Amino acid sequence: MARIKLGMVGGGNDAFIGGVHRIASRIDDRFELVAGALSSTPEKSRASGEALGLPRIYDDFKHMAIREARLKNGIDAVAIVTPNNMHYPAAREFLKRGIHVICDKPLTSTLADAKKLVKAAEASSALFVLTHNYTGYPMVRQAREMVASGAIGKVRVVQVEYPQDWLSVEQDFKQAEWRTDPARSGVGGSTGDIGTHAHNLARFITGLEVESLAADLEAFVPGRRVDDNGHVLLRFHGGAKGMLWCSQVAPGNENALRIRIYGETGGLEWAQEDPNYLWHSPFGEPKRLITRNGAGAGDAAARVSRIPPGHPEGYLEGFATIYTEAANAIEAHKAGETPDPDILYPTIQDGLRGVEFIDACVRSSARNAAWVKL
Amino acid sequence: MARIKLGMVGGGNDAFIGGVHRIASRIDDRFELVAGALSSTPEKSRASGEALGLPRIYDDFKHMAIREARLKNGIDAVAIVTPNNMHYPAAREFLKRGIHVICDKPLTSTLADAKKLVKAAEASSALFVLTHNYTGYPMVRQAREMVASGAIGKVRVVQVEYPQDWLSVEQDFKQAEWRTDPARSGVGGSTGDIGTHAHNLARFITGLEVESLAADLEAFVPGRRVDDNGHVLLRFHGGAKGMLWCSQVAPGNENALRIRIYGETGGLEWAQEDPNYLWHSPFGEPKRLITRNGAGAGDAAARVSRIPPGHPEGYLEGFATIYTEAANAIEAHKAGETPDPDILYPTIQDGLRGVEFIDACVRSSARNAAWVKL
Amino acid sequence: MARIKLGMVGGGNDAFIGGVHRIASRIDDRFELVAGALSSTPEKSRASGEALGLPRIYDDFKHMAIREARLKNGIDAVAIVTPNNMHYPAAREFLKRGIHVICDKPLTSTLADAKKLVKAAEASSALFVLTHNYTGYPMVRQAREMVASGAIGKVRVVQVEYPQDWLSVEQDFKQAEWRTDPARSGVGGSTGDIGTHAHNLARFITGLEVESLAADLEAFVPGRRVDDNGHVLLRFHGGAKGMLWCSQVAPGNENALRIRIYGETGGLEWAQEDPNYLWHSPFGEPKRLITRNGAGAGDAAARVSRIPPGHPEGYLEGFATIYTEAANAIEAHKAGETPDPDILYPTIQDGLRGVEFIDACVRSSARNAAWVKL
Amino acid sequence: MARIKLGMVGGGNDAFIGGVHRIASRIDDRFELVAGALSSTPEKSRASGEALGLPRIYDDFKHMAIREARLKNGIDAVAIVTPNNMHYPAAREFLKRGIHVICDKPLTSTLADAKKLVKAAEASSALFVLTHNYTGYPMVRQAREMVASGAIGKVRVVQVEYPQDWLSVEQDFKQAEWRTDPARSGVGGSTGDIGTHAHNLARFITGLEVESLAADLEAFVPGRRVDDNGHVLLRFHGGAKGMLWCSQVAPGNENALRIRIYGETGGLEWAQEDPNYLWHSPFGEPKRLITRNGAGAGDAAARVSRIPPGHPEGYLEGFATIYTEAANAIEAHKAGETPDPDILYPTIQDGLRGVEFIDACVRSSARNAAWVKL
Repeated sequence: MARIKLGMVGGGNDAFIGGVHRIASRIDDRFELVAGALSSTPEKSRASGEALGLPRIYDDFKHMAIREARLKNGIDAVAIVTPNNMHYPAAREFLKRGIHVICDKPLTSTLADAKKLVKAAEASSALFVLTHNYTGYPMVRQAREMVASGAIGKVRVVQVEYPQDWLSVEQDFKQAEWRTDPARSGVGGSTGDIGTHAHNLARFITGLEVESLAADLEAFVPGRRVDDNGHVLLRFHGGAKGMLWCSQVAPGNENALRIRIYGETGGLEWAQEDPNYLWHSPFGEPKRLITRNGAGAGDAAARVSRIPPGHPEGYLEGFATIYTEAANAIEAHKAGETPDPDILYPTIQDGLRGVEFIDACVRSSARNAAWVKL
Repeated sequence: MARIKLGMVGGGNDAFIGGVHRIASRIDDRFELVAGALSSTPEKSRASGEALGLPRIYDDFKHMAIREARLKNGIDAVAIVTPNNMHYPAAREFLKRGIHVICDKPLTSTLADAKKLVKAAEASSALFVLTHNYTGYPMVRQAREMVASGAIGKVRVVQVEYPQDWLSVEQDFKQAEWRTDPARSGVGGSTGDIGTHAHNLARFITGLEVESLAADLEAFVPGRRVDDNGHVLLRFHGGAKGMLWCSQVAPGNENALRIRIYGETGGLEWAQEDPNYLWHSPFGEPKRLITRNGAGAGDAAARVSRIPPGHPEGYLEGFATIYTEAANAIEAHKAGETPDPDILYPTIQDGLRGVEFIDACVRSSARNAAWVKL
Repeated sequence: MARIKLGMVGGGNDAFIGGVHRIASRIDDRFELVAGALSSTPEKSRASGEALGLPRIYDDFKHMAIREARLKNGIDAVAIVTPNNMHYPAAREFLKRGIHVICDKPLTSTLADAKKLVKAAEASSALFVLTHNYTGYPMVRQAREMVASGAIGKVRVVQVEYPQDWLSVEQDFKQAEWRTDPARSGVGGSTGDIGTHAHNLARFITGLEVESLAADLEAFVPGRRVDDNGHVLLRFHGGAKGMLWCSQVAPGNENALRIRIYGETGGLEWAQEDPNYLWHSPFGEPKRLITRNGAGAGDAAARVSRIPPGHPEGYLEGFATIYTEAANAIEAHKAGETPDPDILYPTIQDGLRGVEFIDACVRSSARNAAWVKL
Repeated sequence: MARIKLGMVGGGNDAFIGGVHRIASRIDDRFELVAGALSSTPEKSRASGEALGLPRIYDDFKHMAIREARLKNGIDAVAIVTPNNMHYPAAREFLKRGIHVICDKPLTSTLADAKKLVKAAEASSALFVLTHNYTGYPMVRQAREMVASGAIGKVRVVQVEYPQDWLSVEQDFKQAEWRTDPARSGVGGSTGDIGTHAHNLARFITGLEVESLAADLEAFVPGRRVDDNGHVLLRFHGGAKGMLWCSQVAPGNENALRIRIYGETGGLEWAQEDPNYLWHSPFGEPKRLITRNGAGAGDAAARVSRIPPGHPEGYLEGFATIYTEAANAIEAHKAGETPDPDILYPTIQDGLRGVEFIDACVRSSARNAAWVKL
C-alpha cells in the first residue's frame, strides 16, 4: 500500500507541535511528507523545509494549495499546525481543492471562523481530521468502549481536569507568546489551549454532550490578556454533572490531563501522564488496574495499540493513532468505500463543539459565571 | 499528670464515630472515659455503657450534665458524638455548667442552632473543640506551616475534593440512615457530612476564608432527600479561586479527601488516604516528597507526630491529635495559663463557618448555582 | 472486662520502641500499665517511671519480677523492650514466676540465649508473645488468608525486602549506638534488626519455612562492627525460592518493608509504608487493589481492623493488634479455655526461627555465601 | 541529510521485535528500510517483505548480504532480529562485507559464537550496535549522568530486577516457543531473554562491571528446558554489591524492569513501565521526582528526548534512540569523523558481557550457586 502524500503548513524550526505531527505521521508508516509551507515568512519557510529535506517547499500555504492540487502526484492531505488564527484561512484553501485536512486544535481562533470552516468542509469532497490527540490513546478507547458497554452504568458525574504549570510566570518564548495573544490564540487562553482537550475527552469517553456550563475564568499572571485558569461547572444532556478545571499556573503539573467518570455501578479513572493504565472500580468490588494490551483490555484498545503490555506507549503513539485513523479513512475515501465503523477520529463537528465551549466559557465568565447553554 | 475525666454523649454499640473518639482519646493517654449517656434510649445507653465498663452510666445527657457538674470528681470534658441535630441541645447543657465540650462535626444541623451554640459557648467558661479531625494529621500541619511561611507564594488556586462511594446505592443501615435524613443531618447531605471537612481543610491550610461560592448540588440516588454530590466554585478573600467537590456516589473512592494548593511560586498536594506524604512542587524545580518526620518536614508536623518516618500514622492518630490538643488547652485552662500558641484545634467559630458553608451551598444550588456570599 | 495489668522493662525516656509498646497497649483498651523498671540504672528508671505516672516503679527487673509475683494485684504480663541482649535475662525472671511475657524482637542477642529462653518458656505456665508487629497489619492477615485459601496457587517465588537509610552514615544517637554494638544487638546488624522482620513476614504469609539460605553480608560504613546490608538467597521447604534484602544504607528508604509472593496462579504484593493496600494479580486477569475493610477483603483482615476503608490504619494499630491478640490469649488462659483458633501472634518458636536466621546468615556470609541449612 | 539505507534479517509477519525495530528506525527519520530477508523460509520471507512493500526481498540473509554489498545503492546497515541462534551467522555475513549491523540482544546463543562474533566485528570496518534498548530511555541516561557526576556518591548497593509473567504457564505461541528452546535461545531462559537487559542496565547506569556472581536458577513450569526464574547475587569491581532477579513466572508483572542504586550520599530509582520518572533521594533531604525534560533533568536526557515534560515518551522512543545513536555513529563513520563523544549505544563488547553473564549464571547454578568470576 503506497504511502499517503502529506504536506504541512506551519511547523517550522522552533515550533513544538509541527515536530510532533511529523513523528506521528511516520510511526505507522502510512504517510510521506513531501511538501511544506512551514512558516509565516518565505525565508523561514524555506530554511525549515530544507532542514527537513522536503522535496517541495513553498513560500506560503496558498501557493502550496494551488500548486499541489494541480500536480499529478500532489499531496493527498495537508497537516495544518500553525497558530490557531491561521487554521481557518489555511484549511479553506486545501478543502476547496479537495485536499484532505489534518488540523491541530482548537479548530479556529473565533467562533465565526469555526462556522465558516464547517461550511467549507461540508462543501468539500475532502475529509477533515482534528488532532484531539488524546482520543488516540488505547486506554482512552478502552474507557469509551467500557462506558458504551454499560460497564459503569448510567453516567452521573464527570471530573475532568487539565492542569499545567509552564505559564505560572510570564514567559516570552515563542510557544508562550502566541498562546497568550488573543489575536492568534483566540479569546480563550487555558480554556482554548487545554480546556478544549479536557472537554473533548469527556465527550469522547462518555458519549455525552454538555448542555450548559458556568465558568469562572481568571488571568492570574499580571498583564496576561487571556485566562490562565478556568473553573467550569458542567451539566450534560441526560442529567450527568461535572467539573472541568484547566490551568497553566499550577506548579508541579506538567501536562496533567486526567478524567474520572462515575456511573451508577462503577467508576473509571485515566491520567494522560501515565497513559497505559485505566482504573476500573465496579461498585462493591476491588479496584482493577487495566493495562494497555493486558488482561482485561478489549478490542477497541488493542486495535490502536502496537506493542505488548508493560512496554509503555506514549504521547507520540497516541498522536500517531489519529494519523493512522486519518489514513484509514483517506484510503477508504480513495477507494470509494464506506469506512470501517471502528475508525474513530475527531471531526470538524468536534472542533466546532470545542470552539463553542471556549466561547461559552468566556461568555459565562463575563457574566459572573452565569449558566450558558451550548 | 492526672488524666482528664471525660464523658461521652452518643457513641453506643453500633455507632462508628463513638469508637473512634474513644480510641483517639486513649492514644496519647491524656483522657479517661468515666461517664456516658451513649444512646438515645435509656436501655441502649445502659447496655452500651456496661459493655464499655463505664463507671457512671446515664439515661440521658441532661441528667448526666446536671449530675457530673455536681460531683466532686465529675467529668472535666464531654465528647458529643450524636447525630448532628443533637449537638446543640447536648452541648448547651454541658457548656452552661462549665464542662468542656469536644463535639463532632458539623457543629449543628441548622444555622440557627449554630448561632445559638456560639452564644452558649461565649457565655461559658468552658472550652469548645470541634473534631475536624483531618487538621490533626502531621502533614496537614506541615502544609499549613509551609503556606504560612511563604513556601509556595501567594495562593492562587485551591482544588479540594472529598469523594466517597458508600451511598452510590440506597443504603438502610444506621450510618446511612440518619445521614440522609435532613431532620437529623441537616439540609446538607454530602455537603454537610464531608463537604464541611473539605471546606475546613482548605481554610486551615491556606489561612484563607471563602468570600463567596456557587454550588450545584444533586441527589443522584432516587428518593434521596439530601444532596449526595456537590460541585462548588469558590472565591476566597484576597483573590484566590477554587473548586470543591464532595460526593458519596463516586465508585472507587473510599474516603478520598484530597487537597491541592497552587501559589505564585509552588504547589502542594496532600491526600488523606496516604496521609504520611506531602508533595511540594517549587516552580522550576523537581517535585519533592516530604514525609512525616522525614527530611524536610518541619516543627509543626513533628509536634503532633509520634513515631519515626516510614512507620505510618493513620486516621486514629490524626484524630488523637485533636484530643491531645484539647487536653493541652484544658490543662492550660485549669492552670489559668495562656495556652501555648502552637496548640491548634478547630473551634466553635470554625464550626459556625462550616454550617454557614452548608447553608450557602444549599441556598446557591436552590438559585441555580448563583453566587452566595459567606 | 477488667484490663490486664501490665509491667514494662526498658522503654525509658529516650527509647523509641517503649513508647510504641505503651500506645499499642492502650489502643484497644485491654491493658493498664501499672509497673515498670524502665531503664538500666535505678535513677533513670525512676525518672522515666515518674514521668509516666506509673504506680509502681522498680530499680531493676529482677526486683520487679519478685515483688509483682507476690502482690495480690500484681502484673499479669510484662512488656520487655530493652536492647536485645537483655531480653533473655529479663524474660526468664518473669516466666519463672508465671508472668506472661510480651517481648520485642529479635528474641535474644545470641542463639544460645534463644534456646535457653525456649526452655524457660516451655517450663513456665505463662504465655510468650513476640512483637513481630508487622504480622498485626490487617492486609498482612489478608495475604496470609489468601495464600492459605489457594488464591495464588502453590507458591514459587518470594521476594521480600526491608531497606532503610538511617545508618547510611555513622550515627551516634542511642538508637543507632546499641543497634550497631554486637554485644547488645547480637551478631547481626541489619539482619537482626530488620532482616528478621522480613524473614518472619515471609514465613507468616506463605506458611513456608526456609530450608536453607546463602547470605552475602556487608558493613559498608567504615568502622561498623555489624552488617548494614544483607543479600540473602532463600530456598523454602517444598521448592519455593526467594530473595531477602535488608539494608540500613539505602538512601530514600525510610522503613520500606515489602513482600511479593508469586504462585502458580497469581501474585500478591504488600508494602509496609502503604499498609492499607494489598495487590492481588490473578494470572490472566487485571490486577486488583484490595483495601483494608474494603470490597474483596476477608474475615482475617476484618477481625483485626478497627475503622472503615479509606480511613488509614497505621503502624501503631498493627502493633496494637499484637497486644490485643496477646490479651485474647491471656484471657483464655486465665479462664482455662482453649483460645479461639483465629488468635494469631508470633510465638517464642517464631523468635527462635528468627535468631536461627540471623545465625545462619552470619555463618553463610563468613563462608563466602555458602548454603546453610536452617 | 539522506536517510541511511537499512535492511532487515528476521522480523516477518508474526514476530514481535521486528515490528518494533521498524517503528524505531522511522521515528527520528534517519533510516529507510529498503531490503529484507524477513523469515527463515523463502516463502514466508517473500510474503512478509511484500506485505511491507519492501523494494528488495531476499530468500535468505546470505544472498542479501552478497547482493546488497555489490549494489551501488545497497544497504548501509542491517537490522538482525532473528531468534538468538541466528545472530552470529547472519551478522558475520554483513560484517565481512562492511555493512553495519544493528543486532537484537542477547548477542548470540552461545559464548563461543559471541567470541567469534567479536572477532568478526574487530576484523570489519563496519560498526556493530546491540539493541539493549532500555539504555535509550532519557531517564536512564539521566541516571547514568547523575551517578557519573557523583550525585549519589560511591555506589554501594545495586538492586535490579526484571520480572514478567507471561510464561507462568506453558505457552505454545511463537514468541514463547523459541525463547524456551535452548537450541535457539541459548542456555539461559529468563536470564538470557531479560536477565541480560537487567545486567546491562546496571552496568550502563553505574559504570561498574560485575566481578563475580552466584546464581540460583530454576525452571518452575514443568517440562521447561531453560530457567524461568533467576536469583543472582552480584559483586562488582570496586566493592559494590547487588542482587539481580529475573523471572517470567511472576503474575502481575508485565515487563517490570526496575533498578535501584544506592551510594554513599544518595539513591536513585527507575522503573521501565513508568519510564519518564526518576527518583533521586539525596540522603537527609526529601525525595525528588525528576521527570523527562522537566526541572532537574540534565543534558544527557534532553539530548535523547523529543517532546516536553508531561508528554510521556515510551518504549518505542527509547528504542528509537538506539537507532538514532547508530545513525549518528554511521554518519560520522561515513564522513570519516570522530564521533561526538556524547553518542552512546550498546556495543559488541556489551553484548559479549551479556553472554558471559548468561554463561556464568548457568555455570554457577549448576554448582549450587557457587561464585563464578566474570
